[in-house]
Amino acid sequence: MKVHILGCYAATPRTLTNPTAQVLEIKNHLFLIDCGEGTQVELRRQKIRFSRINHIFISHLHGDHFFGLPGLVASFRLLGRQKALHIYGPKGLKEAITLLLKLGNSWTNYPLLFHELVEDQPVTLYEDEVVSVDTIPLDHRIYTNGFLFREKPSPRKLNVEATRKYRIPKEYFQLIKQGNNYELEDGTLISNRELTLDPPAPMSYAYCSDTAFNPRIVPQISGVQVLYHESTFLRTEHQLALKTGHSTAAEAAEIARQAGVAHLILGHYSTRYRDIEKFRQEAQTVFPEVLLAEDGKSFEF
Amino acid sequence: MKVHILGCYAATPRTLTNPTAQVLEIKNHLFLIDCGEGTQVELRRQKIRFSRINHIFISHLHGDHFFGLPGLVASFRLLGRQKALHIYGPKGLKEAITLLLKLGNSWTNYPLLFHELVEDQPVTLYEDEVVSVDTIPLDHRIYTNGFLFREKPSPRKLNVEATRKYRIPKEYFQLIKQGNNYELEDGTLISNRELTLDPPAPMSYAYCSDTAFNPRIVPQISGVQVLYHESTFLRTEHQLALKTGHSTAAEAAEIARQAGVAHLILGHYSTRYRDIEKFRQEAQTVFPEVLLAEDGKSFEF
Repeated sequence: MKVHILGCYAATPRTLTNPTAQVLEIKNHLFLIDCGEGTQVELRRQKIRFSRINHIFISHLHGDHFFGLPGLVASFRLLGRQKALHIYGPKGLKEAITLLLKLGNSWTNYPLLFHELVEDQPVTLYEDEVVSVDTIPLDHRIYTNGFLFREKPSPRKLNVEATRKYRIPKEYFQLIKQGNNYELEDGTLISNRELTLDPPAPMSYAYCSDTAFNPRIVPQISGVQVLYHESTFLRTEHQLALKTGHSTAAEAAEIARQAGVAHLILGHYSTRYRDIEKFRQEAQTVFPEVLLAEDGKSFEF
Repeated sequence: MKVHILGCYAATPRTLTNPTAQVLEIKNHLFLIDCGEGTQVELRRQKIRFSRINHIFISHLHGDHFFGLPGLVASFRLLGRQKALHIYGPKGLKEAITLLLKLGNSWTNYPLLFHELVEDQPVTLYEDEVVSVDTIPLDHRIYTNGFLFREKPSPRKLNVEATRKYRIPKEYFQLIKQGNNYELEDGTLISNRELTLDPPAPMSYAYCSDTAFNPRIVPQISGVQVLYHESTFLRTEHQLALKTGHSTAAEAAEIARQAGVAHLILGHYSTRYRDIEKFRQEAQTVFPEVLLAEDGKSFEF
């Protein structure tokens, strides 16, 4: 599992930072999460192929999370896309994108499918044999969802040594991988447990931005591998976080601690701070495994 | 007069080029012309102060000419803007920007004034004591206007030597600058012409993008100082230019020649071409004074 940070700063344009967008690479899918202005350029810069993106998840309709979407939708057309593009996001997104295309008389020549969200409970947006995506209802100034990406457990792996030990013919391997036991000629039953190995633990990624401190999400994200949680402010600006529906680094870490995640990635920093290392320091007083998002950075798990 | 090129490439996102946007600095105004995605970042990169932009002119509603506008409008708000912002562009622009702001519940805290265009004849969009801005109706796939920026003639300058020669008291200088003659004590009339000098020739800038070859604009832009004319294609792609409502470099030069302009700036290059020097070569077979726009380049006249 790989997370490519295209942009991880809050909206205020005082510097040359990118607004929010990231690509999650999981089980051979490339999921684009949020799409701030400049996402196209960052995709190109990081050499991520546009054609591999088939699903885009928009958390909420503040400009710094979706003003790059109309241009991306238009570029897909110019690049000759034919595959369907699925966009998941709050109600209103379809009207906006459709209006912008209509004004330019620039309809897409590929199927553009909107999945609009109004639910305030988790819903499953996508599911196939290897991965699922659910919403994580968040608490921001406007209707906002995070997204929970989960790999499905892989089948157990054949324990080659054990199959040799019991001289099991190849024809039975598929049955064993499917969970069956094996009976020796003398009637002894060898348990599937002994004939197989644990598969790698399924990866999971919870994306939570933007949101006020909201412990109600903890049960849903409990035990995830990686939590990306916004930390727009430091504790010193706690009042501002409350007022604007954002979190401090310490609050993000508190969610990570309560949920018992393996890694916390911080991001969505206000551009008022020159030194983002301070976010790590503040978070680590609460939770140790802290990573800092930075524009152009990738994390592999 | 200064032209800052923020972006000068056509839409196809094969490379790291910017879509169209430029700033015209004329008589202490900063006029933003078109606003492709990434305009904000380029403004910051070129250190152009956001607060000096009060008028934005949008030629047409293809994404590569206005998808940077919602973000810019939102950033003005975050930067605490209070002054009115005037946006001139085709009908539909107000609905689009308003919808995007409404979805984010992010209204501006400054007056945002739209001046929507439907006319197919030139109209005056802006006028003050020193400058005027008119539309130039163009011929593209959708409703499109260019813009003609004209300095007004400055008042004639006092010829200090002549006032000394005729020993004219200072009290009369203002009257002379206003165009009056002066009568000597012996009754001789000294003409204003002799007492004043020509002011600098008024500057003018015609922005024509996007457009097919369209000689009907020649009378309106006749004799302008600087013509920015799109040249999406080279002559070898003439059929493609016809089909898409764009111009070749040779056609842009032909407009410059017929209009007798002083300088032609080419831009809006298709990203299919690696070497933009070829645009200059092609244009110079028709018209000599050719300049090539490039992202990040400024021209002073």
